Amino acid sequence: MVERRKPMWVKDAIDYVMQYKKHGEIEIVSLDDCDGRFLAEPLVADHDVPPFNRSPYDGFALRAVDTKNASRDNPLSLKVIDEIGAGHVSEFEVGHMEAIRIMTGAQIPKGSDSVVMLELVKEEKRSEGTLITIKRSLKEGENISFQGEDTKKGNPLIDRGVAINPGIKALLATFGYSNVKVSRRPLIGIIATGSELLNPDEELVPGKIRNSNGYMIESQILRAGAQYKRYASISDNLDKLYETIKLALDECDILITTGGVSVGDYDYLPEIYRRLGANLLFNKIAMRPGSVTSCAEKDGKLLFGLSGNPSACYIGFELFVRPYIRTWLCSERPYLRTISGTLKNDFSKPNPFSRFVRGKIVYENGNVFVEPVGLDKSGVVTSLAWADCLMILPGGTRGYMNGDQIELLLLEDQQGSEKPWVEAKFSKS
Amino acid sequence: MVERRKPMWVKDAIDYVMQYKKHGEIEIVSLDDCDGRFLAEPLVADHDVPPFNRSPYDGFALRAVDTKNASRDNPLSLKVIDEIGAGHVSEFEVGHMEAIRIMTGAQIPKGSDSVVMLELVKEEKRSEGTLITIKRSLKEGENISFQGEDTKKGNPLIDRGVAINPGIKALLATFGYSNVKVSRRPLIGIIATGSELLNPDEELVPGKIRNSNGYMIESQILRAGAQYKRYASISDNLDKLYETIKLALDECDILITTGGVSVGDYDYLPEIYRRLGANLLFNKIAMRPGSVTSCAEKDGKLLFGLSGNPSACYIGFELFVRPYIRTWLCSERPYLRTISGTLKNDFSKPNPFSRFVRGKIVYENGNVFVEPVGLDKSGVVTSLAWADCLMILPGGTRGYMNGDQIELLLLEDQQGSEKPWVEAKFSKS
Repeated sequence: MVERRKPMWVKDAIDYVMQYKKHGEIEIVSLDDCDGRFLAEPLVADHDVPPFNRSPYDGFALRAVDTKNASRDNPLSLKVIDEIGAGHVSEFEVGHMEAIRIMTGAQIPKGSDSVVMLELVKEEKRSEGTLITIKRSLKEGENISFQGEDTKKGNPLIDRGVAINPGIKALLATFGYSNVKVSRRPLIGIIATGSELLNPDEELVPGKIRNSNGYMIESQILRAGAQYKRYASISDNLDKLYETIKLALDECDILITTGGVSVGDYDYLPEIYRRLGANLLFNKIAMRPGSVTSCAEKDGKLLFGLSGNPSACYIGFELFVRPYIRTWLCSERPYLRTISGTLKNDFSKPNPFSRFVRGKIVYENGNVFVEPVGLDKSGVVTSLAWADCLMILPGGTRGYMNGDQIELLLLEDQQGSEKPWVEAKFSKS
Repeated sequence: MVERRKPMWVKDAIDYVMQYKKHGEIEIVSLDDCDGRFLAEPLVADHDVPPFNRSPYDGFALRAVDTKNASRDNPLSLKVIDEIGAGHVSEFEVGHMEAIRIMTGAQIPKGSDSVVMLELVKEEKRSEGTLITIKRSLKEGENISFQGEDTKKGNPLIDRGVAINPGIKALLATFGYSNVKVSRRPLIGIIATGSELLNPDEELVPGKIRNSNGYMIESQILRAGAQYKRYASISDNLDKLYETIKLALDECDILITTGGVSVGDYDYLPEIYRRLGANLLFNKIAMRPGSVTSCAEKDGKLLFGLSGNPSACYIGFELFVRPYIRTWLCSERPYLRTISGTLKNDFSKPNPFSRFVRGKIVYENGNVFVEPVGLDKSGVVTSLAWADCLMILPGGTRGYMNGDQIELLLLEDQQGSEKPWVEAKFSKS
């Protein structure tokens, strides 16, 4: 007997998952260990940048008014009264026809209001002191980086939920975040099931394949910003599988089972959900591949049942698990970034369900094109390695042709989207 | 006295650096620890995928010829002689008017040449055995995933020098790479210099700023795929700096000094290069920011002297150090990926040197647009955090306007380019 399941729209399934969204606790890590972690609080400037008026060049700080009449025909001489390197502050005040030699990054001395670059003056060391000769006039404020022109104290610069990249790490250092508040990474339990599965270090035998989904999902978990715990692969013992799932639910924040929970045609998951008293959110989605993706909830924790087919498993994770993880990490843009691109191939066969096809973006003269990679079957594993996007071919009554504009989900992007892709709903009957 | 340096073209400076390129040694890591590492050898299929003809659905394996006359008006009955789950192989051969119940992923039994899906037949358990009734004919090969249709044994699937992502990790698992040969990450020494620098945990004092470049570069090093060792920040002691650089050169594969090696206007680097007997490759480049980027070579090891200005430092790393690192990691595409995009702003002022402006890509209807982020001054640190590309405004006699097509270097991309961006050379005099 075959259970008839009613397929759910992709968008509705995402909404079901996101009903259970939560934010992770705050964890403090050293600045040295923060790469790729997600800010748990906005990054705020603790001082103006620059923190003082400073010189962007090596040169001489002086009073613009003194140079008013300087020209090639009328060179003027100023007396150099001090010399300051970056990190040092002059004790002198620049007076009438005086200058202070100043290095890049040093604070503009009192009295001065502009800087002339080193290479534009003639310097002359005499017994009574150093003189510079200047042949052009300066404007007040010329060659000064003003306090606060980059950012003002108190400005929030980066939202919480953003992954720390080199530029953000520079900001953290600048503003004294020697310890950084990040969101605790959710711990995701992984149970790969299927009696056909061998470990990667086992020799192939007839009828069996090596477990690749488990490793792939672990890598997707890391890329999404979470961490994982691997549980023993269970194949054909309902009681053992139930006990393992129960344990994993206790120990982890989310649980993912991948594929092959069928023995014969008996699907263990519904029975396990029943035993757990879990609340089934969905078990069929109007999409290809991955239509058998399921999700249940128990005491606020989600159990994702991803397909055993590599592509279906991969896509199920990116569409449904990733946004939950990114929201946990406080991201306001938890969904895969959606952009438009032009198809380079025909997909002439119409499909009742929306299709997510592994694609590769090609940029040509400022335009985004996309072409499929490898064989587009859900059991195919090789093309996943080459894909940098998922091409969306919405379900309906028509095919798609070379030149059609379609939507793409970017797989390697950190920016994300505020909203998920939404299909146009139509009658599925 | 000011040293007059002759600026070098960006492309020529890159060529100088790449003269000293080398490949790192091979290191073996566990499959569990390979994420983000770079393959040191091509990934090759150790078996056909699928490894045997298998069923993509739950259903019944049978002989297509037996169903030739089946139709709605002429349903035919077949006898079910066995039942196999994934990972199991039937010992029976399918004969005339026989079928074997088969689960997704299981090997197609001997004698059968097609699979009918579970939901398309009527199953009837009788005392003498199970019968199925089928109302349509099947074609030979229908619903079979054929051995090797995804990939053939011996096929090289991924080049060496490619970073391991979830799809590649799945392939490694599939093909039995429980240990993975990756390139050893080059160790890059970092010496941040400048008497104006405070540590991130220090309070600001007049004239000083916190060291951000060191942390930023460390993060860029990790993103590029290398590892770093931080040396004490040295400000105003030539001998101490020399000793530290000598030690770091011994211990590391590459050395980066950032900024502020000036005390007064004395630049220590030329003197240190002389003492080391290092070979100066360049010390001025026709670009903004970062024109003071320098590089020297000693016994085949490179010493990069990056600017003390955050943006100049950042860009110097991405243009000159990153390709060296990626080549070390055996990448055939070590340079930042270059694409075209349309400017959303005016840069009306012509520049003698090529400018690299921090930008953000905006996708609109399948087109790539780009806009600058934050203040475009080399001392500015905040905008680096928001940039996802560098907009290239080649030097010359004209400015650039809204709507102009320009080239962009992608900062967060893993694919890279085979060749660096090359400026059109013109007379710099």
